[in-house]
Formats: sequence, structure tokens, C-alpha cells
Amino acid sequence: MSEKQTSQEPIEDLKAEQEQPVAEAAETEEAVEVSSENWEAKYEEAENRYLRLRADFDNYRRRIQKEEEAKVKYRAQSLITDILPALDNFERALNIEVSDEQTQSLLKGMQMIHSSLLEALKGEGLEIIEAVGKTFDPHLHQAVMQVSEDGVEPNTVVEEFQKGYRLKDRVIRPSMVKVNE
Amino acid sequence: MSEKQTSQEPIEDLKAEQEQPVAEAAETEEAVEVSSENWEAKYEEAENRYLRLRADFDNYRRRIQKEEEAKVKYRAQSLITDILPALDNFERALNIEVSDEQTQSLLKGMQMIHSSLLEALKGEGLEIIEAVGKTFDPHLHQAVMQVSEDGVEPNTVVEEFQKGYRLKDRVIRPSMVKVNE
Repeated sequence: MSEKQTSQEPIEDLKAEQEQPVAEAAETEEAVEVSSENWEAKYEEAENRYLRLRADFDNYRRRIQKEEEAKVKYRAQSLITDILPALDNFERALNIEVSDEQTQSLLKGMQMIHSSLLEALKGEGLEIIEAVGKTFDPHLHQAVMQVSEDGVEPNTVVEEFQKGYRLKDRVIRPSMVKVNE
Repeated sequence: MSEKQTSQEPIEDLKAEQEQPVAEAAETEEAVEVSSENWEAKYEEAENRYLRLRADFDNYRRRIQKEEEAKVKYRAQSLITDILPALDNFERALNIEVSDEQTQSLLKGMQMIHSSLLEALKGEGLEIIEAVGKTFDPHLHQAVMQVSEDGVEPNTVVEEFQKGYRLKDRVIRPSMVKVNE
């Protein structure tokens, strides 16, 4: 029987061959049954291994896809964060008072350049956080000064010292503001 | 035998059940052998399925990792490409001749802002392509004019009309140049 089995099952692996002596010692019918059970156990093990791997693969794919979406969404964050100081200085410089025509002409050109830079940044999802006149929101605004003004709603932003920005739904810099108590 | 087999192998699938009549018709020992071969075949099928899936998983992981690296490397490309026109205008505006002090002061401020903007872009991997005096390279330079000048090396860039840029090792815009024949 064991010889017949060997010729019928040439691809049987090493592990199964090591179990052979047990089968040889037993009665013919029982020997075959043990072998059948072995194969069944091996099948179940392989099937479970397959199912576990498939679950791992699915989870991995889902996780990667989620991470991927976040990475694409915020891909420009690093560069935008680095550009913000230049943008602040740009805006400050544009607020100067000019008297002569030549300076006015240069200023006008610079305003256009600032606009097109801001448009490019907005194209990647940059949004200016609204501040003055809005209710103070600690998620969006950073209070650096408090005042007590009559005729102004309490807990309201009355002045903005530095613009705040959001990249899509993520606040990358809160606005620095003065708040009415 | 067939009843005993059913109770011992409750998870045998439909395909195996369809093969049952053959086993029932055969002699006891042979029936068990068929079953053993069935389990062996099922085991091999499951094992192969597992190995194929593992290979797929490995390939997927490798591909994702490679794509990931490229995405991180060039993540700022879209924003930088959108900023380039503003950068061109910025540079053109800074090249004006100024006479009065007020304009000069504004210009100086703007030059500093331009520098810090360029630094931020360089921080993400932007590099200016060298052009004037270099050998013409069609991968880096776009020839929009040809001249025949004596005393200048042939196939050399003699003038640059618009700056070209590389993002790390990727040319995102060739320089527009005049070339000596």
C-alpha cells in the first residue's frame, strides 16, 4: 500500500513523508484513513492561512488608500507653510502709503503678483480664516490681546494682527487676534 | 462508508459532494483512497492559492512603496508649477530702473520677499536651470532663437528669455533660450 501510495502521490511533501512510517505500521484501510485525515488537516491549515492573508491584504489596501487620500489632500502643506512668512511680508509691504507715481506703478504691479501667488495657493486648497467681526473660535483664532469695548458683541474678534490659514479642512496657522471680552 | 465519511468531513464542499457517487460505487479501500486524493488535491489547490496571493501581496507592497516615494518626492510639483508665472512676473518687475528713493525702498523690500519665496521653493527641491554660457541641452533648454556669433562656442546658450526650473531630477519647465549655431 505504501508503495502504491507513493507512486500515486509523487508530489507529497517532506512533512508527509516523515509521517509515512505510522501509516506503514498500521492496517491497510486505517493507514489510508490516517492519510486522508492528514490531508484534510493540511487542507484546512492552508485554507485558513489563505483566508488570513486575504484579510491582511484587504486591510492593507484599505489603510493605504486612506493614507493616500490624506497625502494627496495635504501634499502642499509643507511648501505652503514655508511660503507663509514671505506672504506675510508681501502683504505688509503692500500696505505702505505711496505719494509718487513711480512707486505707485511698482506697487500696482506687486499687488497683481501677490494676487496671482495667492490664487496659486488657493488652487491647492489654501483658505484665509475669517477673523474680524467673527465670534472668537479657539480652533481658528489665537487671542494675543483682550479688550473691553462697549457696543461690540462679547467674545468677538475686533482686530487681526496676522492672517490665519486653513489648508482645506486643516488649520495650518490660526489668526492672531485681539478679542473683546 | 459514505455516511461515515460525511460525519468525518463536514466541511467538504459541493464539488466534492458531486464526486461522491463514484466513491459510493467503489470498494471501501478505494473509496477512502479517492477521498485522500481529493483532500490532497484540495490542499494543493489551497496552498497554490495562498502562494499566488502572497506573491500578489508582495508585488502590491513593492509597487505602492515605489509610487509612494515618487509622490513624496514630487508632492509640491503641482503648486510650484502654478506659482511659476507669478515668479516670472515678480522677477520682471524687480528688473525696473528706479530713480526716486521711495521706489527704491519698496523695490528693496520686494527683492527680500522674492528671495524668501524662492528659498521656500528651493526647500521643496526647486532648482534653477543654468543656461547662459552653457552648452545647449535639449532636455534642459528650449531654443526659441538661433544666432551665428563669432567668438562664441558653437551650440552654446547666449541669452535666456525665461528661466527654466527642475524639481529635484525632474525638469518642470525648460529655460527658453537663444543659441549660437
